[in-house]
Amino acid sequence: MYRFNNDYSVAAHPAVMQALSDINGNAYGGYGLDEVCVEAADLIKKRIKASDSDVHFLVGGTQANFTVISAALLPYQSVLCADTGHIHVHETGAVEHIGHKIEALPHTNGKISAEQIRAAGENFRTSDVQEHITEPGMVYISFPTEFGTVYSLQELTDIRHACDDYGMILFIDGARLGYGLAAEGNDVKIEDIARLADVFYIGGTKCGAMFGEAVVIRNFMIGHRFRSHIKQNGGMLAKGFLLGAQFRALFTDDLYFDITAGAVAKAMKIKKAFAESGIPSYIDSPTNQQFVLLTEAQCEAFSGKFVFENEGKTADGMRISRFCTSWGTTDEETDALIEAIRELKN
Amino acid sequence: MYRFNNDYSVAAHPAVMQALSDINGNAYGGYGLDEVCVEAADLIKKRIKASDSDVHFLVGGTQANFTVISAALLPYQSVLCADTGHIHVHETGAVEHIGHKIEALPHTNGKISAEQIRAAGENFRTSDVQEHITEPGMVYISFPTEFGTVYSLQELTDIRHACDDYGMILFIDGARLGYGLAAEGNDVKIEDIARLADVFYIGGTKCGAMFGEAVVIRNFMIGHRFRSHIKQNGGMLAKGFLLGAQFRALFTDDLYFDITAGAVAKAMKIKKAFAESGIPSYIDSPTNQQFVLLTEAQCEAFSGKFVFENEGKTADGMRISRFCTSWGTTDEETDALIEAIRELKN
Amino acid sequence: MYRFNNDYSVAAHPAVMQALSDINGNAYGGYGLDEVCVEAADLIKKRIKASDSDVHFLVGGTQANFTVISAALLPYQSVLCADTGHIHVHETGAVEHIGHKIEALPHTNGKISAEQIRAAGENFRTSDVQEHITEPGMVYISFPTEFGTVYSLQELTDIRHACDDYGMILFIDGARLGYGLAAEGNDVKIEDIARLADVFYIGGTKCGAMFGEAVVIRNFMIGHRFRSHIKQNGGMLAKGFLLGAQFRALFTDDLYFDITAGAVAKAMKIKKAFAESGIPSYIDSPTNQQFVLLTEAQCEAFSGKFVFENEGKTADGMRISRFCTSWGTTDEETDALIEAIRELKN
Amino acid sequence: MYRFNNDYSVAAHPAVMQALSDINGNAYGGYGLDEVCVEAADLIKKRIKASDSDVHFLVGGTQANFTVISAALLPYQSVLCADTGHIHVHETGAVEHIGHKIEALPHTNGKISAEQIRAAGENFRTSDVQEHITEPGMVYISFPTEFGTVYSLQELTDIRHACDDYGMILFIDGARLGYGLAAEGNDVKIEDIARLADVFYIGGTKCGAMFGEAVVIRNFMIGHRFRSHIKQNGGMLAKGFLLGAQFRALFTDDLYFDITAGAVAKAMKIKKAFAESGIPSYIDSPTNQQFVLLTEAQCEAFSGKFVFENEGKTADGMRISRFCTSWGTTDEETDALIEAIRELKN
Repeated sequence: MYRFNNDYSVAAHPAVMQALSDINGNAYGGYGLDEVCVEAADLIKKRIKASDSDVHFLVGGTQANFTVISAALLPYQSVLCADTGHIHVHETGAVEHIGHKIEALPHTNGKISAEQIRAAGENFRTSDVQEHITEPGMVYISFPTEFGTVYSLQELTDIRHACDDYGMILFIDGARLGYGLAAEGNDVKIEDIARLADVFYIGGTKCGAMFGEAVVIRNFMIGHRFRSHIKQNGGMLAKGFLLGAQFRALFTDDLYFDITAGAVAKAMKIKKAFAESGIPSYIDSPTNQQFVLLTEAQCEAFSGKFVFENEGKTADGMRISRFCTSWGTTDEETDALIEAIRELKN
Repeated sequence: MYRFNNDYSVAAHPAVMQALSDINGNAYGGYGLDEVCVEAADLIKKRIKASDSDVHFLVGGTQANFTVISAALLPYQSVLCADTGHIHVHETGAVEHIGHKIEALPHTNGKISAEQIRAAGENFRTSDVQEHITEPGMVYISFPTEFGTVYSLQELTDIRHACDDYGMILFIDGARLGYGLAAEGNDVKIEDIARLADVFYIGGTKCGAMFGEAVVIRNFMIGHRFRSHIKQNGGMLAKGFLLGAQFRALFTDDLYFDITAGAVAKAMKIKKAFAESGIPSYIDSPTNQQFVLLTEAQCEAFSGKFVFENEGKTADGMRISRFCTSWGTTDEETDALIEAIRELKN
Repeated sequence: MYRFNNDYSVAAHPAVMQALSDINGNAYGGYGLDEVCVEAADLIKKRIKASDSDVHFLVGGTQANFTVISAALLPYQSVLCADTGHIHVHETGAVEHIGHKIEALPHTNGKISAEQIRAAGENFRTSDVQEHITEPGMVYISFPTEFGTVYSLQELTDIRHACDDYGMILFIDGARLGYGLAAEGNDVKIEDIARLADVFYIGGTKCGAMFGEAVVIRNFMIGHRFRSHIKQNGGMLAKGFLLGAQFRALFTDDLYFDITAGAVAKAMKIKKAFAESGIPSYIDSPTNQQFVLLTEAQCEAFSGKFVFENEGKTADGMRISRFCTSWGTTDEETDALIEAIRELKN
Repeated sequence: MYRFNNDYSVAAHPAVMQALSDINGNAYGGYGLDEVCVEAADLIKKRIKASDSDVHFLVGGTQANFTVISAALLPYQSVLCADTGHIHVHETGAVEHIGHKIEALPHTNGKISAEQIRAAGENFRTSDVQEHITEPGMVYISFPTEFGTVYSLQELTDIRHACDDYGMILFIDGARLGYGLAAEGNDVKIEDIARLADVFYIGGTKCGAMFGEAVVIRNFMIGHRFRSHIKQNGGMLAKGFLLGAQFRALFTDDLYFDITAGAVAKAMKIKKAFAESGIPSYIDSPTNQQFVLLTEAQCEAFSGKFVFENEGKTADGMRISRFCTSWGTTDEETDALIEAIRELKN
């Protein structure tokens, strides 16, 4: 069985596993206050060309999301995000659970635009009942989005300007950041993310780490006592050095970037195969997640040999199917899938 | 200056004010544990033909809304409501502040349908990632809606069935209940509300009381230690008897129903005048709130003499204008407005 | 039956009731944005000699408490208060419900000291695990306390200095402020409260108003979008002018101060009678609440004629009994009680 | 440098590390829905002799604590715990952050008693202002406590009966469960914990795992949609199989129990050495944490060679010092410390 269902089904890249084995037996300070985390943070700050950053390592994405939001917003402030945003539809109301409203904006291919943000900001600014509505205090976007799409540098820059004009914080969820940066046609570098966002995170869990997300705070207002927020929201790992060790490995010799680029290259081959076989895409994704429309018969044909994710049906009964590569996807798996796709055609 | 801007600009119906004066000097038990509240509750239970109800008096609507929601839902449960719903757009995120997500559904004339509720319920029921999404545990609707429209008995009954089928609580916000029950063409009686809802409230603030909402709990599961929820959410008035006295007055000789019916009758005259003058309605409301589309010039013409509410602009530049009658609107005021409307025509 | 059980059993001082009657029929802006509230706020600001204050009118104390706390603290900050503090023991966890921890300090006669506050501040300041504990960000005290005692000007000044030294906000709950200011031996003026606190409120509900508390914000950091906090926490009265009218009446010709002073004077007579009858006090209170220790037989002797509050029993079986005067207590009631006390002696 | 400062400074027991390496490369289902977690849960259920349990794997203790509390309590319910309890003093107000009050009871050697619980329950039961106070809905205790002490079987049984009599949930935090079960003189078996608690967890992080706590739910009321609570509170690890693999290893051949027993045996040797050297203990602990009182000079003598934790000072200036063994402590380290202790004597 070949698994293309997601990018978190295998423990860790061998180099990460080795890094964890290597430190086993060593004793470190607790709660992320150790030299391994310092080294990992330094590697990250150097790579993103932003030495004045605050880097914190958290275990997972949902946790990172609501911790950042809890730290960044005042009680009456809300978060703007796409109506397909992870915090809005896949986190069991975690953001609301700790007290904040999410204002969902209609997405276009998983993205929202500077214009939408400006409209929301303007709506609040010009409201004569400001105290009856929440103030949009943050924009949350994902890079890449839930649909694998990416923002262009121009789009991100426009969003940054909109945030500046309306006093909003820009928070970029990078759970799959590596895959986004390696996207076909992408013109955004990690330095751009670091320059444009107030806070973002570099996803490890889906990008080669065993687990872990590196939250990078660029706006010192959010960073004040951020460790207190982490602890309060349950995200402070007693053995923080486990996270440091993983990110140290991933940010040594650009491993993080190489393995995610490899996954995207394989996804592009798969995308091409689908196209050549006349399988329509559900959305045009340049990253490791490919969304195509299959008939029931085609799903059936795949089902004994490939695991992939069912994302619902279209109005005309096609199955929205996600095929996902990862840092761990092999050439053999890719070739097997491509071959199967080609057989579909005939 | 004639005021048609809202239905809460004047203190209280004279009978209510008299009721408060009458009890002044008397000493009562605190926090709603007094004989006046008992009498008021009894009058309400008799009038709604539901003696097995639990009646609690709260000061205001926002408070009543989030207190009921806090009492009724488990942490991972969300509230379904129209995207124009008061809790969604006019309460500064109060529901999220105490931990619950609101799932907004597209409204039709301020209303949502049983079909929409069923779809949301079915979406959760059939989800294979139920733990990643919130469970719709409650339907919140307003009677009448923010646009002054009302649900038909059939619509309410269908919604009740949808709630039953998907295990949702039906909560009816009756901040303007009296005006809704008196709506032109309405076929819903207060007994129906009491029969169909798990919990609802009879709005006093906008319907003749100085302040106060009578929350009626029909589902004993919600009622468990409801007073603890009221206190925790800041809604327990030390002098609860003030609320009891007002509702006792309003539910004596059907005063509540008579004065709200009077306001709707005046609104219907105004509606007719607008129609006869060729002023388009923004929405067809059978209650005390009338929404019409005025040109800037027409707004200007009214502005020296009438106060009304600006609710934004349409795409083609018309001003959405709300004219609101209340229990306190006089014939003189109504006639003056009608005359001014007629002058618009010419 | 003479009632000495609390100070909120009667609707309102006649002048307040008259003030409400007087404005009935007038139309005002909604949500506290009206000229009556402006006038009331101006009278308050003049009387407290602090024109640079922000005055907001809320309906009740619990609501005022958690709204202020929600507005003033960051998520990881806690409130220091006496272990007998109202927010700690009488508000159903309202402060925790909206997310903040209360750190209770052992009280002395209902009070806490600057030394205790400094110790708590120092504990946090010197902690090497600051991120694992909450930061005391606010001191909450009541003037007078739950036991009717008052802080001296020196004590309040010391607390202010402690707050300054440790970066804490000083919040004074003045639900019974009038009675505290009129306390026998009190050397604190309302101007001192306004000078020393970051935020405090002038209690109306127990001091002659029908309902209402005037929150006075002295530290503009707390005041930012305070109306949003009020709305979010359910404390925004649609007819805010009702509150304005009451406080305008209470702050005209020092009515607020005169009627509470009258109540304290009566309490002092009662206190003297208890002392002369050899009835031990539970706590030495100089305000309108008197706490004495009665035998069961003495309670019994009172019970047919007087209503008072049972506050539990001492280890040796004496009943802690509270006798409470108010602005509404008459000379006749006072004399009747004193006579009954004297009869206890014989 | 020998480290006795805590029990979470080393990554993982070699068998756990091996288990993680062994599964690397394998693909598993996400979010704990995989066969490894099933096997681990089965091993646990068998070992605790409670097949009707619900076992969930969470990453850390704070997260486990507030997730269980959020799932188990209604909004107006509070948690009873020792005033030294981890949730009360070491979790940055996490429990209050998600809405619940903690009622701290004075501890005796880190423990609370059935009598204290009954008193709190009785206080609520007999209160005539129940709606103004929180209802104690849960008892939270740690086994072993923060001071390394353990409850006897009789004490636990009494607490269970108190919980039964007052309708409270018993939640046992077992972050160091292994060390407690191996305590000198302990008469509580893990089966007893499983029989007496409504919910408890088996700590992995401090007991040989790289990270992870196994929450065992014995009361199905708490278990309803527990996975939704986990996700909502940020505790759902995408690669749940990592947790399963670790607990599968720890519960194979009683590894969990053997390695923690080894640590306690070493601690007992250290304890004996301290006693023989006349070093007073701060608290008499039968588990892996030893608390002794050292002079500044003695601390100094240790400081170049041993790392241990400073827990503050006594009134007479002695340093409360914690020496902590773990599953990873070697004989060599133990002997070195014992030798140093003996040298202190002379």
